[in-house]
Amino acid sequence: MGVVIEKLKAEWVDELVAVLGEDKVVTSDSVREEFGKDRWHAASLPDVVVHAQNRDDVVATLKFANERRIPVTTRGAGVGYVGGCVPVQGGILLSVRKMDRILEINPSDGVAVVEPGVILNDILEAAREKGWYYPPDPASLKECSIGGTIATNAGGPRCVKYGVTRHYILGLEVVLPNGEVLETGGRCHKNKTGLDLIGMFVGSEGLLGVVTKATLRLIPHPEARAMLTATFAEFEEAAEAVQTILNSGWQPSGLEITDGFTLKAARDYLGPETLPEGNAHLIVELDGRRETVLQDLEKLHELVASSGALAVDEARDRESCEAIWQLRREFSYSLRATGLIKLNEDIVVPRSKLVELVKFARKLEEDTGIPVACFGHAGDGNIHTNLMVKDYDTDKAAREKADAALDILFRWIIENDGKITGEHGVGLAKKRWFKDAVSPVAVDVHRQLKKTLDPNGILNPGKFIE
Amino acid sequence: MGVVIEKLKAEWVDELVAVLGEDKVVTSDSVREEFGKDRWHAASLPDVVVHAQNRDDVVATLKFANERRIPVTTRGAGVGYVGGCVPVQGGILLSVRKMDRILEINPSDGVAVVEPGVILNDILEAAREKGWYYPPDPASLKECSIGGTIATNAGGPRCVKYGVTRHYILGLEVVLPNGEVLETGGRCHKNKTGLDLIGMFVGSEGLLGVVTKATLRLIPHPEARAMLTATFAEFEEAAEAVQTILNSGWQPSGLEITDGFTLKAARDYLGPETLPEGNAHLIVELDGRRETVLQDLEKLHELVASSGALAVDEARDRESCEAIWQLRREFSYSLRATGLIKLNEDIVVPRSKLVELVKFARKLEEDTGIPVACFGHAGDGNIHTNLMVKDYDTDKAAREKADAALDILFRWIIENDGKITGEHGVGLAKKRWFKDAVSPVAVDVHRQLKKTLDPNGILNPGKFIE
Repeated sequence: MGVVIEKLKAEWVDELVAVLGEDKVVTSDSVREEFGKDRWHAASLPDVVVHAQNRDDVVATLKFANERRIPVTTRGAGVGYVGGCVPVQGGILLSVRKMDRILEINPSDGVAVVEPGVILNDILEAAREKGWYYPPDPASLKECSIGGTIATNAGGPRCVKYGVTRHYILGLEVVLPNGEVLETGGRCHKNKTGLDLIGMFVGSEGLLGVVTKATLRLIPHPEARAMLTATFAEFEEAAEAVQTILNSGWQPSGLEITDGFTLKAARDYLGPETLPEGNAHLIVELDGRRETVLQDLEKLHELVASSGALAVDEARDRESCEAIWQLRREFSYSLRATGLIKLNEDIVVPRSKLVELVKFARKLEEDTGIPVACFGHAGDGNIHTNLMVKDYDTDKAAREKADAALDILFRWIIENDGKITGEHGVGLAKKRWFKDAVSPVAVDVHRQLKKTLDPNGILNPGKFIE
Repeated sequence: MGVVIEKLKAEWVDELVAVLGEDKVVTSDSVREEFGKDRWHAASLPDVVVHAQNRDDVVATLKFANERRIPVTTRGAGVGYVGGCVPVQGGILLSVRKMDRILEINPSDGVAVVEPGVILNDILEAAREKGWYYPPDPASLKECSIGGTIATNAGGPRCVKYGVTRHYILGLEVVLPNGEVLETGGRCHKNKTGLDLIGMFVGSEGLLGVVTKATLRLIPHPEARAMLTATFAEFEEAAEAVQTILNSGWQPSGLEITDGFTLKAARDYLGPETLPEGNAHLIVELDGRRETVLQDLEKLHELVASSGALAVDEARDRESCEAIWQLRREFSYSLRATGLIKLNEDIVVPRSKLVELVKFARKLEEDTGIPVACFGHAGDGNIHTNLMVKDYDTDKAAREKADAALDILFRWIIENDGKITGEHGVGLAKKRWFKDAVSPVAVDVHRQLKKTLDPNGILNPGKFIE
């Protein structure tokens, strides 16, 4: 920590306090430590934490940092899974968490206008109260900020029907590294005026600018939902059922698959009676009109039952549906309850390769001795592949072994037309596979775009573009 | 035309023939004339027309042109409405129309892989045969190329439910101005690996690269659709019904509104019995399961009838639905049948301003004497506002008067949080309002991005980025 202490004494911290005021610039060890990590396995102390209260604070901070070439790493709620907001080169940790106002929920225009620090679920609830819907629903929705979901172009179970975060961002206010404010898009639901500057920033993981306001597209809230769960003897049959459902013209609002390892952990943790027998589990959600969604559910039930399911259960009201989503979340907790550390890799494969992926995971488990649990968004081919590792954070040998296993996993993904991240982002966790995952020309274009928008390289340095 | 003839004699044309072969490089007046325009009111002769047969032809052409600083304007089917592919600075007109293979329709992965010159409807049909769906449906779908829809991020009636072209592009192969081939994305339905390079090119109107292959996201084809049409005494009531429908949790797959001027033209052209009385017309389409979509339709019928409609009609099968869409297309032909030239402006307003827009259009008509017909995608606020002008192409005074009226219209749009183009693009038609429609910082970012990806400015020069 010697270097950090040295920097702390540096002249610029006092100058920054003079610019922003003492209450917004924090240098205490405890706060710097708290803001130096997210939910992944890396941490790095920033020199200072800036609590921005408004856009002007962000402008002042970036102008200040850009003139002095000080690294700035932006942070929302800090609940990412890839170390994306870890300030690996120190400098300023710019927290926008206190910019947390919902400025507008407007059904007449079908928009919400929000600051970046608002917790996603607060937006969902505020919209739902007025009968409107914001579909992207990462599992962290009660903890993550909307800004974080914009930085990672977050997905979730409902994206199989409704698409990812990018599809719901109509307008952005972004502070560029030089402190200029870019306003792009607006509150119209279609817009072809110029290049897609919004797309430049959504999913850019804090490397190109700092979002200070977003206008979101809301859609009418589906009147009702209904769900099926089904167990199958083997994963192959559940994956085949996924294909059958989609090939029969269904557009489910959720289509989740879970493998045998995860189910065993769930039975151990929750009790064997929780789940019918079978080594694979499927969740299918429909949404639509109250009067007809249950009729649709019956037809879907017939289809799934005739697809080799061992048992099919229905959830016919909101409460029962919530209970199933709760069970789905318990799968994660069950894995945690094994006492092992879960390395959650949000990889994606072309949907036809679900079975190959899980077979490969079984082989990886055999070859390395590391248990592998697979479950996730079957409709998108976005399967969270979890390597379950003892003492990953404390045992160097265990960590090296696990990292070697991840290398094998990601090599397989890249060789099989897969993608190394579907919704968490690259961050630090996947940085070492990034260059293999995209073409050399793409790496070069990334570098050029970064150089253009952030010529001094102050924003989130040390991440996937270098 | 003196300059063009001069250039034709230039050494480089012979050199280009030597590189690509005689059959791919055409210099005849008739072909140059044919490829020097689209559906808008501008034309400019290229020096040569290159018919690319494959990616290598595109690479060779761009390398050749980049070294010599020769303008290159890419063209698909040439049916755009804004002059986007008019080669205003001459040089090479690069047609990709002959790259027209559907390489793959793959339901297991939910993708189609296509070359840029394929006609959009051919993709829709090929997907539909296998039970799959590609939703973006511009009115020109039987004439336009998929490459053209990517260049303009095309929309259409179904985008109110399903979103625009960008939401359906999973992967692109793009030749950059220096001849390098960028492959980005792939066949996975989710992908957060790096920046959104796909978004950079979708909607970029040929200014940044040439798309030579695209991987499209397909979704399960809805089993059935059903429609309502309703007439209202006045436009205000139809616009109010739009709000009521969306506020009641409906997610229509089409929601189209038409004003009194257009209806009068339709009654004149098609016969007064074609349409019930009323100065506004609404189309609502639902899609879903065969067994239940008609029940949903009945509920929707009740809602619309109780919203002040003068008459409500139903279309309960595919044939009747097609008849309604045909009627909708006839609205366009009816306007043409007035003998006036239709200046079709695809402007967008926040949805709450539909009524204000139409009131403004009425005032514009009164003030200028130019009839204004409004109809379009009510759900998206994307209303085609058509100034009906006598002898626009031949009468200089008429043209100047119409252009002055357009200036008034676009000023109003910009001052009212609207957008100057929803789905056609900027091209030449809207170029003179572009800088007022986006912020100065946005103009600057556009210039920087263009300079980065096309440092010699060879691609489609003379358009909205200069």
